[in-house]
Amino acid sequence: MRDAKSFYPDWVNSSPEHGTYRSIFKWGDPDRFKHPNPRLYEMIKEKFQMTDSDFQKRKKEGNEKVSLGRPVRLSNEHIEMFIDFVGKDNVSFDDYSRVKYATGKTAQEAMELRNGICKDVADIIVHPRSREDIKKIVTYCNQHKIPVYVYGGGSSVNFGLNTVKGGVTLVMSTHMNRVLEFNETNRTITVEPGIMGPDYEKALHEAQKLFKAKGRYTGGHFPQSFQYSSVGGWIVTLGSGQESSYYGDMYDIVISQEYVTPAGSFKTLEYPGTATGPKVNDIMKGSEGSYGILVSVTCKIFRYMPENLKRFAFIFPSWEDTVDAAREISQGEFGMPAVFRISDPEETDVALKLYGIEGTVIDRIMRYRGFKPMKRCLYIGHSRGEKAFAKNIKKKVKKICRSHGAMYITGYPAKKWAHGRYTDPYMREDLNDFGIMIDTLESAVTWDNFHNLHQGVRDFIKRRPNTICMTHGSHFYPQGTNLYFIFIAKMDDIKEYRKFQEGIIEQIVLHGGSLSHHHGIGKMFAPWMEDHLGKQQMDVLRCLKKHFDPNNIMNPGGTLGLDISDYKKV
Amino acid sequence: MRDAKSFYPDWVNSSPEHGTYRSIFKWGDPDRFKHPNPRLYEMIKEKFQMTDSDFQKRKKEGNEKVSLGRPVRLSNEHIEMFIDFVGKDNVSFDDYSRVKYATGKTAQEAMELRNGICKDVADIIVHPRSREDIKKIVTYCNQHKIPVYVYGGGSSVNFGLNTVKGGVTLVMSTHMNRVLEFNETNRTITVEPGIMGPDYEKALHEAQKLFKAKGRYTGGHFPQSFQYSSVGGWIVTLGSGQESSYYGDMYDIVISQEYVTPAGSFKTLEYPGTATGPKVNDIMKGSEGSYGILVSVTCKIFRYMPENLKRFAFIFPSWEDTVDAAREISQGEFGMPAVFRISDPEETDVALKLYGIEGTVIDRIMRYRGFKPMKRCLYIGHSRGEKAFAKNIKKKVKKICRSHGAMYITGYPAKKWAHGRYTDPYMREDLNDFGIMIDTLESAVTWDNFHNLHQGVRDFIKRRPNTICMTHGSHFYPQGTNLYFIFIAKMDDIKEYRKFQEGIIEQIVLHGGSLSHHHGIGKMFAPWMEDHLGKQQMDVLRCLKKHFDPNNIMNPGGTLGLDISDYKKV
Repeated sequence: MRDAKSFYPDWVNSSPEHGTYRSIFKWGDPDRFKHPNPRLYEMIKEKFQMTDSDFQKRKKEGNEKVSLGRPVRLSNEHIEMFIDFVGKDNVSFDDYSRVKYATGKTAQEAMELRNGICKDVADIIVHPRSREDIKKIVTYCNQHKIPVYVYGGGSSVNFGLNTVKGGVTLVMSTHMNRVLEFNETNRTITVEPGIMGPDYEKALHEAQKLFKAKGRYTGGHFPQSFQYSSVGGWIVTLGSGQESSYYGDMYDIVISQEYVTPAGSFKTLEYPGTATGPKVNDIMKGSEGSYGILVSVTCKIFRYMPENLKRFAFIFPSWEDTVDAAREISQGEFGMPAVFRISDPEETDVALKLYGIEGTVIDRIMRYRGFKPMKRCLYIGHSRGEKAFAKNIKKKVKKICRSHGAMYITGYPAKKWAHGRYTDPYMREDLNDFGIMIDTLESAVTWDNFHNLHQGVRDFIKRRPNTICMTHGSHFYPQGTNLYFIFIAKMDDIKEYRKFQEGIIEQIVLHGGSLSHHHGIGKMFAPWMEDHLGKQQMDVLRCLKKHFDPNNIMNPGGTLGLDISDYKKV
Repeated sequence: MRDAKSFYPDWVNSSPEHGTYRSIFKWGDPDRFKHPNPRLYEMIKEKFQMTDSDFQKRKKEGNEKVSLGRPVRLSNEHIEMFIDFVGKDNVSFDDYSRVKYATGKTAQEAMELRNGICKDVADIIVHPRSREDIKKIVTYCNQHKIPVYVYGGGSSVNFGLNTVKGGVTLVMSTHMNRVLEFNETNRTITVEPGIMGPDYEKALHEAQKLFKAKGRYTGGHFPQSFQYSSVGGWIVTLGSGQESSYYGDMYDIVISQEYVTPAGSFKTLEYPGTATGPKVNDIMKGSEGSYGILVSVTCKIFRYMPENLKRFAFIFPSWEDTVDAAREISQGEFGMPAVFRISDPEETDVALKLYGIEGTVIDRIMRYRGFKPMKRCLYIGHSRGEKAFAKNIKKKVKKICRSHGAMYITGYPAKKWAHGRYTDPYMREDLNDFGIMIDTLESAVTWDNFHNLHQGVRDFIKRRPNTICMTHGSHFYPQGTNLYFIFIAKMDDIKEYRKFQEGIIEQIVLHGGSLSHHHGIGKMFAPWMEDHLGKQQMDVLRCLKKHFDPNNIMNPGGTLGLDISDYKKV
């Protein structure tokens, strides 16, 4: 806390006690915190018409020990079998584990756990050691119709991990986190799916030491959840990293996969391209555990060349100019920047505070040059790849931005963004502690529908008084991009939140956005799937489901909308 | 014919008469010819131990009028219905049409038709005018279990067009060849699938005039069959163009598709990227008419900037050096050349004759500098895209090639290659006229298996005396490439040919190549599909088949190996 004149809230600075609800819903490293800076705090008060007194006392913090009080419904006979399959140390059914491994990182789950509300949980938690363990488990569960859920890094934001039907949850990151093969000639790495982002990236950076490689490598996939998500999770939910405009979405990065399904096990062939009918390798991507379990994957790797990085940032006079420039860059055929983010006026306003630019010389020059707050828009990015390639991208980006009236504001904002790229989610707990909800939704969109989608969704969010709506475009393609909506409001009633969130989803669909660009469907978007894809396409997904999992034991209870009768909108 | 001293064969120079077998199997424009030049002719004689006297008299030329002598097995009632659906002018069942529209461009079909052998034919040929026509036809045929085949441009090289079960063949190029929408903002074009390569490309080049576009565009897809293949065919067979290393395979170029299937009709959504489960848009690609009929497609388009083209060619001291350089280029992360072809020593030898380089100053310098025939290897290519981007690629390519001992031999060979890129297939008829078989097979391969596949297949081909085997790598990826085997031999016995060809396919599979990189499976590769993909993956394709086409009316009789019991190896 600071001095009396400028009050600053007493944000939580101690790690949650083990066994508490808070230890489950808190983002990231238990010992790490990132608090809103004073400028953000001032903005929050202003936007939500709150005063320092509203930040004197924290609301429900979820510091109670998890207490579930629900029996394990699996018979002892079944439990003995699981112990037999994986060993006693790899099976648990205590309350804490059951809740932890049924929970992702949605705003709703955090709200619920704060209030001690536990949704459906699995009966037991199993930590498989190998594909052989998984084969035994899937065969057994299929015989006995026991639901099987898979837990990767735990960062799902759409109830992908909710164990609606009980049964068993397999935790992949405990043992199945090994590098199986590193192939420098083919520029691929084969890993088990439970390997977490930082370990995966570290192995590639240290390829010379670990695999006697000639060079250093990167996986090129950096979602905001990077530190707390697994390679397998990236694939089955069709993730995109913050540098996907250059490296590709996870869909593009995966070369071959091995699955265990109730219908059998297989590994797809490893070719750079084929014309042998519909690609089963691609069919499995995005199946979210509803067809089978990913047990190994071969991914493309890229040269790690941080020395070639070229950062840049621009301020534009208007959102229209920004979008026009972003489209021109995306369609310029000089290669794509890796990081590529355009912020609408409201996000720009917040970003300038967040990056500490507001009030600096850069800010004064911007104002002097006529870039007005709540009109001006920020574009930050960096380019990668071979040196001259990366340099040429920056040069072309500059030229295009200037032709749309933008001013170059150095690489500093991009550097600041990179510094906070994984830490911003830590602020959620601070906001939630004082009854402020923060959440996001994202949607793919073609260029010709960009403003319609942005405006339509934004109008809905802003119709609610005292609500922040920040939007950025990220993940760029020649044909369009992804719009990322961040909404913040004083709201701690779960029902009110769900209604509001559903309203936003409805607006996304109504304005022609995709239901998800890179977070998957999970169980949250399930109720919209059939309307979105249409019956014919849903029938294709259901037909595959029936083929792989005739007894509906794989991630049942709404995943991808496949057994939708089990799941309803609010 | 030239003077007596240097005999030169009397290659056929007149277009085949209408109604003849030759008019069906002859490649391309009926009035166009390309004959082996004198250097090639000398080589042919030498390689096949033939003399001028072997070229005095042509063998069977297939100049007879097509005579099928097989009844139409469809009832008059059915035929009346088809006439009712599409109009009398759009239905035919004469012998010539029935044979023409059941025939692709395989070496085997050409051999057979030369000998007046007609394989299975459809009963009637229908030229649908619209998706509505197709819906009616598919619904009707599904009700009455009438097989439905689709004919695009007719360039299939794997019996994709063989109408094994009779029934009806739909010719897509007659009417369903329109541009439906041009969208400059999204950089997409939506067309009917029957539009042929040149018409498609012309519409994009002339977008300013036709669609009031600001710029000129290209589709970026240029298979050797470009002039005689359709956009729909490119997609359902998973084609790759000669510039795919830059523009992508057809799989990458397609944004959304509309299909009519026995199970219903649907159009996939148009997003640049999504995470809404397995992508039905991708599932349909490569289905080769066995799931349903493609009735419209939206493709990416690219800026047409011929002024930025940068050509290059290099001669390498050895095949190993060439492959190493090609891999380094593919993994260099400075963007990919569009055309990218490396020829092994035997192909290099032929290419230098074909491009008229043998005997020139370039040839003398090459020899002087120690690049020895049957050791030296040719690499040709060109880069595209934005000007500095294309220029940087050429610069980096040069640097890498030189570091592998290559000599830059100007852009001339690349120019010569481009000049003949669509015309080389015309020479097949000339060779066939004198009993010489020429055929190709291609296979995708990862870098670490490149030499094993090349050597294994080549060894098999060369084990046969007096047989040419030329191989090039084309269609490059960071993870591997495609090996294209061209084999030429004095051979006009169909059984001998089939046995030889099957032997090569066996070797491809044995040495770990893919069954097809960019020509699809058709019915020719069907017998190998289950071994290649494995039962589990074939089960996935069969499950989709059953879903879309429960009565097996869509391209039945072996396509993709889905109803394999109908089709056997020799």
